[in-house]
Amino acid sequence: MQISMLIYPNFTALDLFGPLQIWTMLPDAKIELVAKELGPLPTDTPASLMPTHTYETASKSPDILFAPGGTEGTFAIMEDRATLDYLADTGARSGWITSVCTGALVMGAAGLLKGYQATTHWAALDQLKNFGATPVKERWVIDRNRASGGGVTAGIDFGLAITAEIAGEEAARMAQLAVEYNPHPPYNSGHPDVATPETVTAVLDHFAETTARLATTEKT
Amino acid sequence: MQISMLIYPNFTALDLFGPLQIWTMLPDAKIELVAKELGPLPTDTPASLMPTHTYETASKSPDILFAPGGTEGTFAIMEDRATLDYLADTGARSGWITSVCTGALVMGAAGLLKGYQATTHWAALDQLKNFGATPVKERWVIDRNRASGGGVTAGIDFGLAITAEIAGEEAARMAQLAVEYNPHPPYNSGHPDVATPETVTAVLDHFAETTARLATTEKT
Repeated sequence: MQISMLIYPNFTALDLFGPLQIWTMLPDAKIELVAKELGPLPTDTPASLMPTHTYETASKSPDILFAPGGTEGTFAIMEDRATLDYLADTGARSGWITSVCTGALVMGAAGLLKGYQATTHWAALDQLKNFGATPVKERWVIDRNRASGGGVTAGIDFGLAITAEIAGEEAARMAQLAVEYNPHPPYNSGHPDVATPETVTAVLDHFAETTARLATTEKT
Repeated sequence: MQISMLIYPNFTALDLFGPLQIWTMLPDAKIELVAKELGPLPTDTPASLMPTHTYETASKSPDILFAPGGTEGTFAIMEDRATLDYLADTGARSGWITSVCTGALVMGAAGLLKGYQATTHWAALDQLKNFGATPVKERWVIDRNRASGGGVTAGIDFGLAITAEIAGEEAARMAQLAVEYNPHPPYNSGHPDVATPETVTAVLDHFAETTARLATTEKT
Protein backbone atom coordinates (compact mmCIF):
# COMPACT_ATOMS: atom_id res chain seq x y z
CA MET A 1 0.00 0.00 0.00
CA GLN A 2 2.01 2.93 -1.36
CA ILE A 3 0.71 6.33 -0.24
CA SER A 4 2.09 9.66 -1.49
CA MET A 5 1.06 12.72 0.52
CA LEU A 6 1.94 16.13 -0.91
CA ILE A 7 3.20 18.80 1.49
CA TYR A 8 4.03 22.39 0.58
CA PRO A 9 4.93 25.61 2.41
CA ASN A 10 2.31 26.82 4.91
CA PHE A 11 -0.26 24.08 4.28
CA THR A 12 -2.73 23.39 7.12
CA ALA A 13 -1.02 20.82 9.32
CA LEU A 14 -4.15 19.15 10.68
CA ASP A 15 -5.44 18.50 7.12
CA LEU A 16 -2.50 16.09 6.82
CA PHE A 17 -2.31 14.59 10.29
CA GLY A 18 -5.87 13.24 10.41
CA PRO A 19 -5.44 10.83 7.49
CA LEU A 20 -1.69 10.40 8.13
CA GLN A 21 -2.27 9.11 11.68
CA ILE A 22 -5.06 6.80 10.53
CA TRP A 23 -3.35 5.48 7.39
CA THR A 24 -0.16 4.74 9.36
CA MET A 25 -2.25 1.91 10.89
CA LEU A 26 -3.06 0.36 7.46
CA PRO A 27 -1.39 -3.04 7.00
CA ASP A 28 1.83 -2.66 5.00
CA ALA A 29 1.40 1.10 4.58
CA LYS A 30 4.39 2.78 2.93
CA ILE A 31 3.80 6.51 3.26
CA GLU A 32 5.85 9.23 1.55
CA LEU A 33 5.68 12.94 2.41
CA VAL A 34 6.40 14.51 -0.96
CA ALA A 35 7.59 18.09 -1.41
CA LYS A 36 9.25 20.17 -4.09
CA GLU A 37 12.53 19.95 -2.19
CA LEU A 38 13.94 18.31 0.93
CA GLY A 39 14.62 20.15 4.21
CA PRO A 40 12.35 21.62 6.89
CA LEU A 41 9.04 22.79 5.47
CA PRO A 42 6.84 25.27 7.39
CA THR A 43 3.15 24.61 8.01
CA ASP A 44 0.49 27.13 9.02
CA THR A 45 1.33 26.26 12.64
CA PRO A 46 4.70 26.72 14.40
CA ALA A 47 5.59 23.13 13.39
CA SER A 48 7.91 22.45 10.44
CA LEU A 49 7.99 18.98 8.86
CA MET A 50 10.68 17.00 7.06
CA PRO A 51 9.64 15.79 3.59
CA THR A 52 10.76 12.23 2.81
CA HIS A 53 10.66 12.47 -1.00
CA THR A 54 10.73 15.03 -3.81
CA TYR A 55 8.69 15.03 -7.03
CA GLU A 56 11.66 13.27 -8.65
CA THR A 57 12.04 10.47 -6.08
CA ALA A 58 8.36 9.90 -5.15
CA SER A 59 6.42 6.85 -6.29
CA LYS A 60 5.27 7.15 -9.91
CA SER A 61 2.10 5.08 -9.34
CA PRO A 62 0.98 5.19 -5.70
CA ASP A 63 -2.14 3.46 -4.46
CA ILE A 64 -3.21 6.77 -2.91
CA LEU A 65 -2.23 10.31 -3.92
CA PHE A 66 -3.23 12.98 -1.37
CA ALA A 67 -3.14 16.78 -1.04
CA PRO A 68 -3.86 18.85 2.08
CA GLY A 69 -5.28 22.38 1.98
CA GLY A 70 -4.59 25.75 3.53
CA THR A 71 -4.94 29.43 2.69
CA GLU A 72 -2.09 31.57 1.29
CA GLY A 73 0.22 28.59 0.83
CA THR A 74 -2.46 26.72 -1.07
CA PHE A 75 -3.20 29.59 -3.44
CA ALA A 76 0.55 29.83 -4.14
CA ILE A 77 1.03 26.10 -4.84
CA MET A 78 -1.99 26.13 -7.19
CA GLU A 79 0.10 28.32 -9.49
CA ASP A 80 3.30 26.30 -9.22
CA ARG A 81 3.86 24.51 -12.52
CA ALA A 82 6.24 21.82 -11.17
CA THR A 83 3.70 20.86 -8.49
CA LEU A 84 0.77 20.74 -10.90
CA ASP A 85 2.83 18.64 -13.33
CA TYR A 86 3.81 16.22 -10.54
CA LEU A 87 0.17 15.83 -9.49
CA ALA A 88 -1.17 15.48 -13.05
CA ASP A 89 1.50 12.94 -14.06
CA THR A 90 1.26 10.89 -10.86
CA GLY A 91 -2.52 11.21 -10.66
CA ALA A 92 -2.82 9.56 -14.08
CA ARG A 93 -1.28 6.40 -12.57
CA SER A 94 -2.67 6.55 -9.00
CA GLY A 95 -5.23 4.18 -7.52
CA TRP A 96 -6.98 6.90 -5.53
CA ILE A 97 -6.78 10.68 -5.96
CA THR A 98 -7.65 12.28 -2.63
CA SER A 99 -7.66 15.52 -0.67
CA VAL A 100 -8.77 17.21 2.53
CA CYS A 101 -10.00 20.80 2.80
CA THR A 102 -8.78 23.11 0.02
CA GLY A 103 -6.44 20.35 -1.11
CA ALA A 104 -9.34 19.65 -3.49
CA LEU A 105 -8.62 22.99 -5.19
CA VAL A 106 -5.00 21.91 -5.69
CA MET A 107 -6.16 18.63 -7.28
CA GLY A 108 -8.61 20.67 -9.34
CA ALA A 109 -5.89 23.04 -10.51
CA ALA A 110 -3.93 19.97 -11.65
CA GLY A 111 -6.93 18.99 -13.80
CA LEU A 112 -7.77 15.93 -11.75
CA LEU A 113 -11.36 16.70 -10.69
CA LYS A 114 -12.99 17.56 -14.03
CA GLY A 115 -16.33 15.75 -14.21
CA TYR A 116 -16.13 14.47 -10.62
CA GLN A 117 -18.13 15.18 -7.50
CA ALA A 118 -15.99 16.56 -4.66
CA THR A 119 -16.05 18.50 -1.42
CA THR A 120 -13.71 20.96 0.33
CA HIS A 121 -13.76 23.46 3.21
CA TRP A 122 -17.26 24.97 3.50
CA ALA A 123 -15.93 28.48 2.76
CA ALA A 124 -14.40 27.30 -0.55
CA LEU A 125 -17.10 24.90 -1.77
CA ASP A 126 -18.26 26.99 -4.75
CA GLN A 127 -14.70 27.34 -6.02
CA LEU A 128 -14.71 23.67 -7.04
CA LYS A 129 -16.82 24.67 -10.06
CA ASN A 130 -13.83 26.62 -11.42
CA PHE A 131 -12.14 23.26 -12.03
CA GLY A 132 -15.06 21.42 -13.62
CA ALA A 133 -15.97 19.57 -10.40
CA THR A 134 -19.45 19.31 -8.89
CA PRO A 135 -19.46 20.58 -5.27
CA VAL A 136 -21.20 18.32 -2.75
CA LYS A 137 -21.90 19.51 0.82
CA GLU A 138 -20.89 16.35 2.73
CA ARG A 139 -18.26 15.49 5.36
CA TRP A 140 -16.51 13.43 2.66
CA VAL A 141 -17.33 12.50 -0.94
CA ILE A 142 -16.28 9.45 -2.97
CA ASP A 143 -16.86 9.48 -6.74
CA ARG A 144 -15.22 6.54 -8.52
CA ASN A 145 -11.51 6.79 -7.54
CA ARG A 146 -11.72 10.39 -6.35
CA ALA A 147 -12.20 10.96 -2.61
CA SER A 148 -12.30 14.30 -0.83
CA GLY A 149 -12.84 15.42 2.75
CA GLY A 150 -14.31 18.71 3.97
CA GLY A 151 -12.44 21.26 6.05
CA VAL A 152 -9.46 20.36 8.29
CA THR A 153 -10.94 17.98 10.91
CA ALA A 154 -13.03 16.22 8.21
CA GLY A 155 -9.75 14.50 7.36
CA ILE A 156 -10.33 12.14 10.28
CA ASP A 157 -13.76 11.00 9.04
CA PHE A 158 -12.39 10.90 5.47
CA GLY A 159 -9.31 8.91 6.55
CA LEU A 160 -11.49 6.29 8.25
CA ALA A 161 -13.80 6.09 5.21
CA ILE A 162 -10.83 5.41 2.91
CA THR A 163 -9.49 2.82 5.35
CA ALA A 164 -12.86 1.05 5.07
CA GLU A 165 -12.69 1.16 1.25
CA ILE A 166 -9.16 -0.27 1.19
CA ALA A 167 -8.92 -2.58 4.19
CA GLY A 168 -12.57 -3.21 5.11
CA GLU A 169 -15.03 -1.96 7.68
CA GLU A 170 -13.46 -3.78 10.65
CA ALA A 171 -10.06 -2.15 9.98
CA ALA A 172 -11.77 1.24 10.04
CA ARG A 173 -13.65 0.41 13.24
CA MET A 174 -10.38 -0.63 14.89
CA ALA A 175 -8.62 2.54 13.76
CA GLN A 176 -11.51 4.66 15.05
CA LEU A 177 -11.28 2.97 18.45
CA ALA A 178 -7.47 3.25 18.56
CA VAL A 179 -7.63 7.03 17.99
CA GLU A 180 -10.67 7.30 20.30
CA TYR A 181 -12.74 9.09 17.68
CA ASN A 182 -15.85 9.44 19.81
CA PRO A 183 -16.33 13.17 19.24
CA HIS A 184 -17.96 15.42 21.79
CA PRO A 185 -17.34 19.02 20.64
CA PRO A 186 -17.90 21.61 23.36
CA TYR A 187 -20.21 23.57 21.05
CA ASN A 188 -22.36 22.94 17.98
CA SER A 189 -20.50 25.36 15.74
CA GLY A 190 -18.61 23.23 13.21
CA HIS A 191 -20.49 24.19 10.04
CA PRO A 192 -22.44 27.24 8.82
CA ASP A 193 -25.61 25.12 8.94
CA VAL A 194 -25.33 24.88 12.74
CA ALA A 195 -23.20 27.87 13.85
CA THR A 196 -24.75 31.21 14.79
CA PRO A 197 -24.92 33.82 11.98
CA GLU A 198 -22.60 36.04 14.06
CA THR A 199 -19.93 33.31 14.22
CA VAL A 200 -20.22 32.59 10.48
CA THR A 201 -19.80 36.29 9.67
CA ALA A 202 -16.79 36.58 11.99
CA VAL A 203 -15.02 33.60 10.41
CA LEU A 204 -15.80 34.78 6.86
CA ASP A 205 -14.38 38.20 7.82
CA HIS A 206 -11.26 36.45 9.09
CA PHE A 207 -10.87 34.58 5.79
CA ALA A 208 -11.55 37.82 3.88
CA GLU A 209 -8.62 39.44 5.70
CA THR A 210 -6.48 36.49 4.62
CA THR A 211 -7.54 36.90 1.02
CA ALA A 212 -6.93 40.63 1.13
CA ARG A 213 -3.48 40.07 2.62
CA LEU A 214 -2.74 37.63 -0.19
CA ALA A 215 -3.80 40.17 -2.81
CA THR A 216 -1.48 42.75 -1.24
CA THR A 217 1.38 40.27 -1.18
CA GLU A 218 0.87 39.48 -4.85
CA LYS A 219 1.07 43.15 -5.80
CA THR A 220 4.34 43.64 -3.90
CA MET B 1 -0.10 33.86 25.53
CA GLN B 2 3.02 31.72 25.83
CA ILE B 3 2.45 28.01 25.07
CA SER B 4 5.11 25.32 25.52
CA MET B 5 4.33 21.98 23.87
CA LEU B 6 6.64 19.06 24.65
CA ILE B 7 7.61 16.75 21.81
CA TYR B 8 9.75 13.62 22.12
CA PRO B 9 10.77 10.69 19.90
CA ASN B 10 7.87 8.64 18.52
CA PHE B 11 5.06 10.54 20.23
CA THR B 12 1.61 10.30 18.59
CA ALA B 13 1.53 13.11 16.05
CA LEU B 14 -2.23 13.73 16.07
CA ASP B 15 -2.18 14.18 19.88
CA LEU B 16 -0.20 17.36 19.19
CA PHE B 17 -1.78 18.64 15.99
CA GLY B 18 -5.35 18.88 17.32
CA PRO B 19 -4.57 21.49 19.99
CA LEU B 20 -1.64 22.95 18.01
CA GLN B 21 -3.87 23.80 15.03
CA ILE B 22 -6.56 25.25 17.29
CA TRP B 23 -4.24 27.19 19.61
CA THR B 24 -2.42 28.73 16.63
CA MET B 25 -5.65 30.72 16.19
CA LEU B 26 -5.51 32.17 19.74
CA PRO B 27 -4.87 35.93 19.75
CA ASP B 28 -1.17 36.64 20.37
CA ALA B 29 -0.29 32.94 20.70
CA LYS B 30 3.44 32.31 20.98
CA ILE B 31 3.90 28.54 20.67
CA GLU B 32 7.13 26.65 21.32
CA LEU B 33 7.74 23.00 20.37
CA VAL B 34 10.10 21.92 23.11
CA ALA B 35 12.37 18.87 22.85
CA LYS B 36 15.44 17.53 24.60
CA GLU B 37 17.55 18.58 21.62
CA LEU B 38 17.11 20.37 18.29
CA GLY B 39 17.02 18.62 14.92
CA PRO B 40 14.43 16.41 13.19
CA LEU B 41 12.39 14.39 15.70
CA PRO B 42 10.46 11.28 14.60
CA THR B 43 6.79 10.80 15.45
CA ASP B 44 4.81 7.54 15.39
CA THR B 45 3.92 8.42 11.77
CA PRO B 46 6.35 8.86 8.85
CA ALA B 47 6.47 12.60 9.66
CA SER B 48 9.43 14.11 11.55
CA LEU B 49 9.08 17.53 13.18
CA MET B 50 11.54 20.31 13.95
CA PRO B 51 11.60 21.38 17.62
CA THR B 52 11.86 25.14 18.12
CA HIS B 53 13.28 25.11 21.66
CA THR B 54 15.14 22.85 24.08
CA TYR B 55 14.57 22.43 27.81
CA GLU B 56 17.30 25.07 28.30
CA THR B 57 15.82 27.71 25.95
CA ALA B 58 12.09 27.12 26.51
CA SER B 59 9.92 29.54 28.49
CA LYS B 60 10.36 29.13 32.25
CA SER B 61 6.75 30.15 33.06
CA PRO B 62 4.42 29.49 30.08
CA ASP B 63 0.70 30.18 30.23
CA ILE B 64 0.15 26.61 29.00
CA LEU B 65 2.43 23.59 29.36
CA PHE B 66 1.35 20.60 27.21
CA ALA B 67 2.41 16.98 26.65
CA PRO B 68 1.20 14.60 23.92
CA GLY B 69 1.03 10.81 24.35
CA GLY B 70 2.02 7.71 22.45
CA THR B 71 3.10 4.13 23.16
CA GLU B 72 6.77 3.02 23.26
CA GLY B 73 8.10 6.57 22.97
CA THR B 74 5.91 7.69 25.85
CA PHE B 75 7.00 4.87 28.16
CA ALA B 76 10.63 5.77 27.37
CA ILE B 77 10.24 9.50 28.05
CA MET B 78 8.49 8.74 31.36
CA GLU B 79 11.83 7.38 32.57
CA ASP B 80 13.95 10.24 31.22
CA ARG B 81 15.16 12.31 34.15
CA ALA B 82 15.96 15.49 32.16
CA THR B 83 12.45 15.50 30.71
CA LEU B 84 10.74 14.91 34.05
CA ASP B 85 12.86 17.65 35.64
CA TYR B 86 11.96 20.08 32.83
CA LEU B 87 8.25 19.33 33.28
CA ALA B 88 8.31 19.49 37.08
CA ASP B 89 10.31 22.76 37.15
CA THR B 90 8.29 24.45 34.42
CA GLY B 91 4.97 23.02 35.65
CA ALA B 92 5.54 24.71 39.01
CA ARG B 93 5.40 28.08 37.22
CA SER B 94 2.87 27.34 34.44
CA GLY B 95 -0.63 28.77 34.18
CA TRP B 96 -2.15 25.55 32.84
CA ILE B 97 -0.69 22.01 32.93
CA THR B 98 -2.27 20.04 30.10
CA SER B 99 -2.06 16.83 28.11
CA VAL B 100 -3.75 14.71 25.47
CA CYS B 101 -3.89 10.90 25.47
CA THR B 102 -1.09 9.21 27.44
CA GLY B 103 0.58 12.60 27.76
CA ALA B 104 -1.26 12.56 31.10
CA LEU B 105 0.98 9.69 32.20
CA VAL B 106 4.03 11.80 31.36
CA MET B 107 2.67 14.68 33.45
CA GLY B 108 1.88 12.14 36.17
CA ALA B 109 5.42 10.75 36.07
CA ALA B 110 6.67 14.31 36.57
CA GLY B 111 4.57 14.49 39.75
CA LEU B 112 2.15 17.05 38.35
CA LEU B 113 -1.17 15.20 38.70
CA LYS B 114 -1.09 14.11 42.34
CA GLY B 115 -4.48 14.89 43.88
CA TYR B 116 -6.03 15.95 40.57
CA GLN B 117 -8.77 14.50 38.38
CA ALA B 118 -7.56 13.64 34.89
CA THR B 119 -8.28 11.58 31.80
CA THR B 120 -6.17 9.82 29.16
CA HIS B 121 -6.58 7.25 26.36
CA TRP B 122 -9.32 4.76 27.33
CA ALA B 123 -6.86 1.85 27.30
CA ALA B 124 -4.60 3.60 29.85
CA LEU B 125 -7.20 5.19 32.14
CA ASP B 126 -6.49 3.02 35.19
CA GLN B 127 -2.77 3.82 35.01
CA LEU B 128 -3.47 7.37 36.18
CA LYS B 129 -3.90 5.97 39.69
CA ASN B 130 -0.18 5.07 39.71
CA PHE B 131 0.55 8.80 39.84
CA GLY B 132 -1.95 9.78 42.50
CA ALA B 133 -4.50 11.10 39.99
CA THR B 134 -8.20 10.26 39.93
CA PRO B 135 -9.20 8.83 36.52
CA VAL B 136 -12.36 10.32 34.99
CA LYS B 137 -13.97 8.79 31.88
CA GLU B 138 -14.72 11.97 29.92
CA ARG B 139 -13.65 13.43 26.55
CA TRP B 140 -11.71 16.07 28.49
CA VAL B 141 -11.32 16.92 32.19
CA ILE B 142 -10.53 20.25 33.85
CA ASP B 143 -9.59 20.28 37.56
CA ARG B 144 -8.35 23.66 38.76
CA ASN B 145 -5.38 24.45 36.41
CA ARG B 146 -4.95 20.88 35.18
CA ALA B 147 -6.64 19.97 31.89
CA SER B 148 -6.42 16.65 30.08
CA GLY B 149 -7.94 15.22 26.92
CA GLY B 150 -8.74 11.57 26.14
CA GLY B 151 -7.14 9.55 23.36
CA VAL B 152 -5.63 11.15 20.22
CA THR B 153 -8.61 12.85 18.51
CA ALA B 154 -9.94 14.07 21.88
CA GLY B 155 -7.23 16.72 21.53
CA ILE B 156 -9.55 18.63 19.20
CA ASP B 157 -12.42 18.81 21.71
CA PHE B 158 -9.88 19.51 24.49
CA GLY B 159 -8.17 22.23 22.43
CA LEU B 160 -11.49 24.00 21.86
CA ALA B 161 -12.42 23.70 25.53
CA ILE B 162 -9.15 25.35 26.58
CA THR B 163 -9.65 28.08 23.97
CA ALA B 164 -13.02 28.80 25.62
CA GLU B 165 -11.38 28.96 29.06
CA ILE B 166 -8.68 31.35 27.88
CA ALA B 167 -10.27 33.46 25.16
CA GLY B 168 -14.00 32.95 25.72
CA GLU B 169 -16.79 30.88 24.20
CA GLU B 170 -17.08 32.90 20.99
CA ALA B 171 -13.36 32.38 20.21
CA ALA B 172 -13.89 28.63 20.61
CA ARG B 173 -17.01 28.69 18.39
CA MET B 174 -15.06 30.54 15.70
CA ALA B 175 -12.15 28.10 15.90
CA GLN B 176 -14.56 25.16 15.69
CA LEU B 177 -16.15 26.63 12.55
CA ALA B 178 -12.76 27.47 10.99
CA VAL B 179 -11.57 23.85 11.35
CA GLU B 180 -15.05 22.58 10.34
CA TYR B 181 -15.35 20.39 13.44
CA ASN B 182 -18.80 19.06 12.63
CA PRO B 183 -17.91 15.38 13.12
CA HIS B 184 -19.65 12.61 11.26
CA PRO B 185 -17.61 9.43 11.88
CA PRO B 186 -18.38 6.63 9.43
CA TYR B 187 -18.98 4.20 12.33
CA ASN B 188 -19.88 4.38 16.00
CA SER B 189 -16.69 2.74 17.22
CA GLY B 190 -14.67 5.45 18.96
CA HIS B 191 -14.87 4.19 22.55
CA PRO B 192 -15.22 0.76 24.23
CA ASP B 193 -18.67 1.88 25.45
CA VAL B 194 -19.95 1.96 21.86
CA ALA B 195 -17.62 -0.34 19.86
CA THR B 196 -18.36 -4.04 19.37
CA PRO B 197 -16.69 -6.40 21.87
CA GLU B 198 -14.77 -7.97 18.96
CA THR B 199 -13.30 -4.60 17.96
CA VAL B 200 -12.35 -3.78 21.56
CA THR B 201 -10.58 -7.13 21.94
CA ALA B 202 -8.73 -6.68 18.63
CA VAL B 203 -7.46 -3.21 19.60
CA LEU B 204 -6.45 -4.35 23.10
CA ASP B 205 -4.57 -7.27 21.50
CA HIS B 206 -2.80 -4.76 19.26
CA PHE B 207 -1.77 -2.65 22.26
CA ALA B 208 -0.71 -5.83 24.11
CA GLU B 209 1.67 -6.63 21.25
CA THR B 210 3.10 -3.13 21.59
CA THR B 211 3.64 -3.59 25.30
CA ALA B 212 5.22 -7.01 24.80
CA ARG B 213 7.55 -5.58 22.15
CA LEU B 214 8.53 -2.83 24.60
CA ALA B 215 9.31 -5.39 27.32
CA THR B 216 11.54 -7.30 24.89
CA THR B 217 13.32 -4.11 23.89
CA GLU B 218 14.00 -3.20 27.49
CA LYS B 219 15.60 -6.57 28.18
CA THR B 220 17.95 -6.26 25.20
